[in-house]
Amino acid sequence: QSKLFFLSNVRYFIDKHHEQHAKKVIHSIKVGTALVLVSLIYLLDPLFEQVGENAMWAIMTVVVVYDFYAGATLSKGLLRGIGTISGGGLGCLAAILSEDFGKTGNTIVVGTSVFIFGALATYCRMIPSIKKKYDYGFLIFILTFSLVAVSGLRADKISELARERLTTIGMGFAICIITSFLIFPMWAGEELHHSTSSKFNKLACCIEECMEAYFSDSEKEGRQSINMSSCKSILHSKSSDESLANFARWEPWHGSFGFYYPWEKYLQIGELLRELASIILLQQVIKEKFNNVGISLGLTMHELGESIMKMRRGQEKVLMLPGLQSIELELSILSTSELQAIENVEALPIANFL
Amino acid sequence: QSKLFFLSNVRYFIDKHHEQHAKKVIHSIKVGTALVLVSLIYLLDPLFEQVGENAMWAIMTVVVVYDFYAGATLSKGLLRGIGTISGGGLGCLAAILSEDFGKTGNTIVVGTSVFIFGALATYCRMIPSIKKKYDYGFLIFILTFSLVAVSGLRADKISELARERLTTIGMGFAICIITSFLIFPMWAGEELHHSTSSKFNKLACCIEECMEAYFSDSEKEGRQSINMSSCKSILHSKSSDESLANFARWEPWHGSFGFYYPWEKYLQIGELLRELASIILLQQVIKEKFNNVGISLGLTMHELGESIMKMRRGQEKVLMLPGLQSIELELSILSTSELQAIENVEALPIANFL
Repeated sequence: QSKLFFLSNVRYFIDKHHEQHAKKVIHSIKVGTALVLVSLIYLLDPLFEQVGENAMWAIMTVVVVYDFYAGATLSKGLLRGIGTISGGGLGCLAAILSEDFGKTGNTIVVGTSVFIFGALATYCRMIPSIKKKYDYGFLIFILTFSLVAVSGLRADKISELARERLTTIGMGFAICIITSFLIFPMWAGEELHHSTSSKFNKLACCIEECMEAYFSDSEKEGRQSINMSSCKSILHSKSSDESLANFARWEPWHGSFGFYYPWEKYLQIGELLRELASIILLQQVIKEKFNNVGISLGLTMHELGESIMKMRRGQEKVLMLPGLQSIELELSILSTSELQAIENVEALPIANFL
Repeated sequence: QSKLFFLSNVRYFIDKHHEQHAKKVIHSIKVGTALVLVSLIYLLDPLFEQVGENAMWAIMTVVVVYDFYAGATLSKGLLRGIGTISGGGLGCLAAILSEDFGKTGNTIVVGTSVFIFGALATYCRMIPSIKKKYDYGFLIFILTFSLVAVSGLRADKISELARERLTTIGMGFAICIITSFLIFPMWAGEELHHSTSSKFNKLACCIEECMEAYFSDSEKEGRQSINMSSCKSILHSKSSDESLANFARWEPWHGSFGFYYPWEKYLQIGELLRELASIILLQQVIKEKFNNVGISLGLTMHELGESIMKMRRGQEKVLMLPGLQSIELELSILSTSELQAIENVEALPIANFL
């Protein structure tokens, strides 16, 4: 029955592997499709005449914004939009304000504003809470601000340029969203849901196999190391969980996940599972020692049983006592509240025997 | 004396905090300076006449490539260069090959090639080993390939465009490298070095405070939870360690770190320290009898951290040897395969110190 558990488990992992691979292939095809669609802006004459060379920005948007998860694509796209608009607006302002100064004054004003806004936004990017969620938006802000403020001195029709560039970025974003949400969407929320539930399964298998290994002979070391790697993978899942939850918050209603779905609860559960995983890993560490204690305890018990059966006493005492003392020593070194309990319980009957 | 330890520790963290803040400010100023320098390409007439509107690419390069660590900036810049050249070359080829076909055939050939290369490179980006190190290069490859292949149909002088664009990217990259390496360089390797040695100190403090809490009354629950947070931060340091080591490999000779410095050894030590941290976190489960090991382990960890920080060797011989032996003895009592490994790895550098 335990064998069956193990087999179904292996099969689950193989299926999971195939599924992961299929998802990657689908994502690649989606990106390819989005690229072809966005290329059409360049390739089809009527569209190209509308936007001209700015069509470049649509391609750039698709390449940079498209992410594996729908929520990530949406959040990146929105951040890019916000960053572009705020950076472009401020950049225009800087360019216009600097117009009143002479040629040299102009250069100095623009240079100073680029320095100040660039340094400020860079500092903001390093604040942990911003870094986690809005890093990309600030990056785009710096980029757009610098480009607009600096080229504002050259381009006469800056507002037209801004309009065209925003339109193409919007087109690129629309293509991203359509292909990402309509063709086999990959939801970060679903992934978080599945990974959390599979963590429970992995831990359950670990515990089961630990038990099995404990009760059976100690020859199956190879299989034990497999458990440990899956246990360790849980231990290091914090950052991926956090980014998944971060993306999941951007995702609209889908499947069984409504709006305002409590994604942070998954993070709390994940935290507890990681603690459990580390306990299991440590238990494995202690187990080995416990086994040794167990073996000698077992031997002593055998001897005690035999001597009681044969109503022998005296001659065993010499053999017994050092063995028992060494067990006591080892238990006291290991002793945890649990092991202490074991010791006490076992010490009582043994004390009675002697 | 333990109080003193604690105070010096608090002070260390405050200093560390100030240092971190100062570093962030310096980085912001460096980025601002680089932006101003790159803006000069736009702002100064003789430079602008050379490159024209392509000056945009220099700004983009600075904004996107500039990273906190010198090694990260260098690796991103090089990856960007390689991605641009390979993507541009292949894109040119696709554009030239598609010229022989008619207007519609042309569009189909370019569309197909964009789809195939885009999808293939996207798939490559999801292979874990590539994702870890070369993700950015593949992103730039997709971007450049699409842009060049698609606009090749429009631009007549594609080679001139490519030359100008590469020149400006090179200029941007040069500005990044100069400001990053010459003005207060932040080495990822140094950061990895310091964070590893501070991990030893944190663990030592954890162990010491646990002991203190154990010997005193059990009322100081608050302080215990502080330890645990620093212990937990070690537990979740895997990904940041890996990226630091990744960047450190790109960094040239600096300080005491030569070429081919064995950065992966830091990762191995980090892995073992994380295991130790998880064991310490579980000390609440194994409260009793931890102290004997704890006192000497704490001291030795402090010493190890300090000697790694200062790259000292030799004079520690007298202090280290008896302490180490007693730990070895006690660890061997607790010994597990994992702890054995810690012992071995630590024995190696210590063997060098002695």
